[in-house]
Formats: sequence, C-alpha cells, structure tokens
Amino acid sequence: MKRISILGSTGSIGQSTLSVVEKFPDRFKVVALAAGNNVELLEQQVRRFRPSLVSVLSGKSAEALNTRCGDLGVRILSGIEGMIQVAAAEEADVTVSAIVGTAGLVPTMAAIRAGKDIALANKEVLVTAGELVMAECRERGTRILPVDSEHSAIFQCLLAGENRDIRKLVLTASGGPFRAFTKRDLVSVTLEQALKHPNWSMGRKITIDSATLMNKGLEVIEARWLFGVASEKIEVLVHPQSIIHSMVEYRDGAVVAQLGMPDMKGPIAYALSYPERLPDVSPALDLARVGTLTFEEPDPDRFPCLAYAYTALEAGGSMPAVLSAANEVAVNCFLEGKIGYGDIARVIKTAMDGHSPSAVKNVDDALRADLWARREAERIIGAGRVASSK
Amino acid sequence: MKRISILGSTGSIGQSTLSVVEKFPDRFKVVALAAGNNVELLEQQVRRFRPSLVSVLSGKSAEALNTRCGDLGVRILSGIEGMIQVAAAEEADVTVSAIVGTAGLVPTMAAIRAGKDIALANKEVLVTAGELVMAECRERGTRILPVDSEHSAIFQCLLAGENRDIRKLVLTASGGPFRAFTKRDLVSVTLEQALKHPNWSMGRKITIDSATLMNKGLEVIEARWLFGVASEKIEVLVHPQSIIHSMVEYRDGAVVAQLGMPDMKGPIAYALSYPERLPDVSPALDLARVGTLTFEEPDPDRFPCLAYAYTALEAGGSMPAVLSAANEVAVNCFLEGKIGYGDIARVIKTAMDGHSPSAVKNVDDALRADLWARREAERIIGAGRVASSK
Repeated sequence: MKRISILGSTGSIGQSTLSVVEKFPDRFKVVALAAGNNVELLEQQVRRFRPSLVSVLSGKSAEALNTRCGDLGVRILSGIEGMIQVAAAEEADVTVSAIVGTAGLVPTMAAIRAGKDIALANKEVLVTAGELVMAECRERGTRILPVDSEHSAIFQCLLAGENRDIRKLVLTASGGPFRAFTKRDLVSVTLEQALKHPNWSMGRKITIDSATLMNKGLEVIEARWLFGVASEKIEVLVHPQSIIHSMVEYRDGAVVAQLGMPDMKGPIAYALSYPERLPDVSPALDLARVGTLTFEEPDPDRFPCLAYAYTALEAGGSMPAVLSAANEVAVNCFLEGKIGYGDIARVIKTAMDGHSPSAVKNVDDALRADLWARREAERIIGAGRVASSK
Repeated sequence: MKRISILGSTGSIGQSTLSVVEKFPDRFKVVALAAGNNVELLEQQVRRFRPSLVSVLSGKSAEALNTRCGDLGVRILSGIEGMIQVAAAEEADVTVSAIVGTAGLVPTMAAIRAGKDIALANKEVLVTAGELVMAECRERGTRILPVDSEHSAIFQCLLAGENRDIRKLVLTASGGPFRAFTKRDLVSVTLEQALKHPNWSMGRKITIDSATLMNKGLEVIEARWLFGVASEKIEVLVHPQSIIHSMVEYRDGAVVAQLGMPDMKGPIAYALSYPERLPDVSPALDLARVGTLTFEEPDPDRFPCLAYAYTALEAGGSMPAVLSAANEVAVNCFLEGKIGYGDIARVIKTAMDGHSPSAVKNVDDALRADLWARREAERIIGAGRVASSK
C-alpha cells in the first residue's frame, strides 16, 4: 500500500491521480490533499478518499471546508504553511506535485526535504530551480518520477540503456493548434483558437503553452535537470498525432520510444507504481487504426518561445525562472484578453533581454527572480512596450 | 576483450559481424570461424582476423584452404564435426550462430552445451527446437542474444518493463515487395520481383521469406521461445518503412518501441556488447526526414504463410520443424525456377496437412521431422500435387 499526498488535487492532474487511486484501492491510499479554493470539489474528494489532512489556499476557504467536512475528523489547514504540511505529510510515501506554476516550488522542496519521493507534474519546479532541486534529491536519497507524458516516456526509454550511452533525448511536440499556420495567420489568432488543442485535454495555461511551444521549451529545461543531459543533447520533434510520447537515441544509433494513446492516467499510474505496471490504465493503442505517424522539425521562426527556452537554459542561473514567470504573466494576460497571441513571445523576450542572470543558490533566489520577472512582465504589458517591440 | 566464434562467417550476417569486430578491435577478438565452401573469402577472413580454428563444409574445401593458409598456423577442420568444434571453441565467450537453415541446429546446441552465450541470427534453431534449446540454455546458464532486428528490438523494449507485465509483443513486418499486390497479381509474380526487398539487403532465402511473410511467421515462433510469451500474445503489424523494428505493449497500455535505420550492424553489435552500446554502429535515424510511418494489419488471405506459422505453433511438437523445412524446400525450388510463387504456400500447407506432430525431446527428433518434411515437400513438388491443390 503506497500512501499518497497530492498537491493540487482539484486540478486536472490531481483529479486524474485520484481516478487512478480509485481504480487501485488495494495499492494506494490518499493521506493528504492540498487544493486552491474549489471547496465544493475538495469536499467531494475528502468524503470519497478520507485523507487525514487537507489544505486550501485562503483562510476563508478553510472555514467553508470546515463547515462542510466538520463531521469527518479531517485536519484542515490553509495557506503556504498548510500546503507545506500536506507536501511533507508524515504518513505519505510519495507526494504528487501538481500545482501549476512557481507556487509549486516551496511545497515540493519541503516534500523532498521530508524524504518523500516526488511524482512531478509541475514544470516550474525544475525550470526555476532544477539544479537545486536535483541536488536536494541526491542529498535526501529521494527520487523524482515524472508525470508529464514526455518525461515519463523518456524515463521509460532510459531503462533500455545506460545514461552514458545517450546520444540525445527527443521530446515530441504535437505542434499545437497553430502548427500549420503561416506567420501572417498567427498575427490574428484568437484565444478560442489557442485553447483548441488537437490531442490533449489539459488546463488553460498549459494549452496556451502548447500553442506557443513554450510548453516544449519548459520540458527541455525540465529534461535537462531530470535526466542530467546537456541542452545540446535535447531535441524537439514535431509529431502531430502525439502517439510517440518521446524518445531516446543511443550512441549506437538505436532509438527507443514510448508510445500510447494521449492519456494522462498512464504516466500518473506509472509514476506511482514504478517499476511495476498496473493493468489497463490507458486505452490500448491500435497503430493499424491510427494508420499514419508524421514528423517534422519545429519552425523557430513561427514558434520563437522554444528558442527562448534554449537561450534561457544556456544563460543559466535565474534566466529560466525569468522565462517561465514572464510566460506565466503573459499567458494569463492573453487568457484575460489583455494582450494578443503574438505578444506572449514578445513579453518574454523583452523581459529576458532586460535580465542579467544571477546564481540560484536557494529557493529564495529562484523566487526573487520569479517575482522580478512577473513585475517586469506586468510593467512591459502595462507600458505598452510590447506593441512597440513588434 | 570478448572472444568470438562465428558460424557462417562468409554469409551476410557473418560478414556484417566481422565488420563490427573490425570497427572495435579493442573489444572483440575472433577465435574461430566456420563457413561453407567459399574458400576464397574465408582465406581473406583468416588473414585479416587470425582465428586459431576454422572449419569448412567439405574435405576438399579444407584442403584448398590449407593450401592457401598453410603459412598462418590456423587449425583447419571440415564437416559437421568441424562446425561443432568451432561452435564450442574453448577460447570463445560467445558464438554467433549465423548459418541459414536447420543446419545451424546441431552446432548451436553444441555451443550452448559448452556454456557459450549465443548471438542468434539463425531462425530455424528456435523454430524447430525452441523448447529444447531454451531448456538447455537454462540448464547451462547461458543466454541467447537475438541478432534479428525484430527480436533485438523486443529484447531492448523488454528492458523497460517486467515480463509479467507484457500484454503483447508486436513484430513489425515491411510487408515485402508484394504488400500492395492483389491476390490476382500474386499468381503471376516472378522470382526477380520476389527478390526485390523494399528496405533490407539480405540473403536470397530470407528475401523470399520476406515476400511470403513466412519470415515473420518464423519470427513469431522464435519470439514465443526466446521471450517465453504465448502465441496469442504475439502479433504482427505491417509497417512498410521498417523504421520501428518491433514493439512491446505492456499491460498498463504503454507501448515501448525500438527504432532505427534498417541496418544489421546495430543488432549484431548490441548482441555482442549488451548491456553496453557501442558508438556509431548504425546510421543515425532522422525521423523528420523520414517524415511518415504507416501501419496496417497483415492480410491473411494474400499471405497465408503467416497463419500457417501460428497453426504450427499451436499444433506444437514437430509441426514448426515441418513448416520450416517444407518452406526451405519450396523456397529453394522457387529460386531454381521449379515452382511458381504461389506454390510455396501450397507446398507448406500440403506437407503440414500430411503430418501428425510428435514430441521433440531431443535434437534428433527435430532433425527427423525436418528430414521427413523435406522429403515430403520434394515428393509433393515432384508429384505435381501442388498444382492440383490450387
């Protein structure tokens, strides 16, 4: 029986994790949940899975949850402190880190320090503080099991060879809804168009990141730390059908790939049950029915965010945190209709151009860079400097 | 330094093995070679690789080789006895079994009994006596490393999971030169057409087996014994580009595949260096350049040999030996222009229909079934019973 703590239980990954737990009640037990302010859904989760500890974002939500679940004897906390306690819950063997954004960094670090294995869905943890986080894992003897389908694929493919024999990691990208758009088409795309991902049903932020390929850029940075592979050995390949989830090319020329239907439950279940595989988690892949898989190089001209991610990784230090935070602000502004699609890349570029990277020696350094980039991105958007940089 | 004995050194796989050895002189040393009667090529190999022991098929060839290589101090043997001595050469760590046909069975078994690891390229060894051979490997503590690209792929994919978690093995097939031919077209195909394999450059026998899909049928039987997986868990998928070399589907729904450019040096080098991978063995795969991979179900109506292989596997005992031997005779007659393309399947079917399978308890049982099937196939062809069974 593996005891699980979930950070972000009411989000997309959190809900999928709970449906995996529900399918295998003899293997998994939920001991702690942390969510934002979706008290109604959290109440249902508490009634269904009976964790001993839950945490919500605001004190007001904690009160509301207490009114709803007072009868269940669950300990209810709130704020960052509550989130940290859920992350490091004494009973937990593994902590699922599924809070979107930099907000996941502090509780994930707390879970690692408490010796928990991490099932990592949050990208920003490794993007903003990858070196730090991996060093902490080594020190505490814990490990990170990727929940992202691409990194889970690479993790699986790496079982077929030695790390020293890696020639490159190949992250596949669907190419998003705008894969075939011309540069001219891209100027006038709408929020509605950007939210229509061809293959995956995900949260809004990640769906936009998929359209700009920033999602893939963040995954490149994540892969760099997760697998200890230099950026020049990490490539992105556009594969519109999203059937090959990613690949490893070994130095002998052999390529090992992991394939499957697009479905998050597979990587989640694998992160929780590794090295075993649980039965019938994902829908079966029928390649004869799929018929055709296609591949193309990503176009850096139409999708500049991907190149910015490599630039940030090469600049090092606080630059990836700036890339990620500026992107988060820009995407939120786009989701709120404040800026156009093309402005997202321009906000990020402007913020990065204005940043001199410094070393990230601790979580505070990462958060400071993050905060600086958020303010800078807001300033850029507010000052209309985005438009003038066209 | 791994010391290697090669059975079939002047054949296609033998030559590729020697070119791998040549590329990595610090890792591999050839200690023994067995060939047929191509004395000229064998002399070159002896001069280049300096084995201490060689064997040829006939006494006459042995004399000829002695005249040519008398100065080199190499021990020269002939016949089955010579082949067995090469297979079990005391100095060898691993024996490459690359003699085509049932002729490979006795020396391969001798190598296993002598405790050698086997790099197996010969299909008939496992097809005719799989259960026996695997039992002998277990008893002697030796292992079989597949050289066939499909089985090498599956071997690699199985490193990403536990055997108990296998849902199925998926062997890919190019579909051969007649993949898109109608049943009517197939009636009049010529030897020349059948010898044009779309992706692989191989020996003549294997090229014809590729056209009929018998090659894949033999691989299904081989996979059954090599990986200990029941026939209903082994599937064949037509994949004309031959880029995905084969796959394993695990019970969670994840599929792990091995890809690469069609090239035999990759699987050969891997079998010799496993678990390590040697640098730059196969040409690099550029999927963006390949562009498209396609998949389709094999058509049992146009390619009946594949179904015969499953039938033989299910009948068990001596039936796979009969399938394989009848096929070998039929293919040779087709190569000699004695029968038509469509007759190959009919000869096999007629021979199998006339056979009551018996247990294969030792090599002699396998060879007896093989001999019976050869005579039966020759009789069928000689009697013109093929034509009447249309």
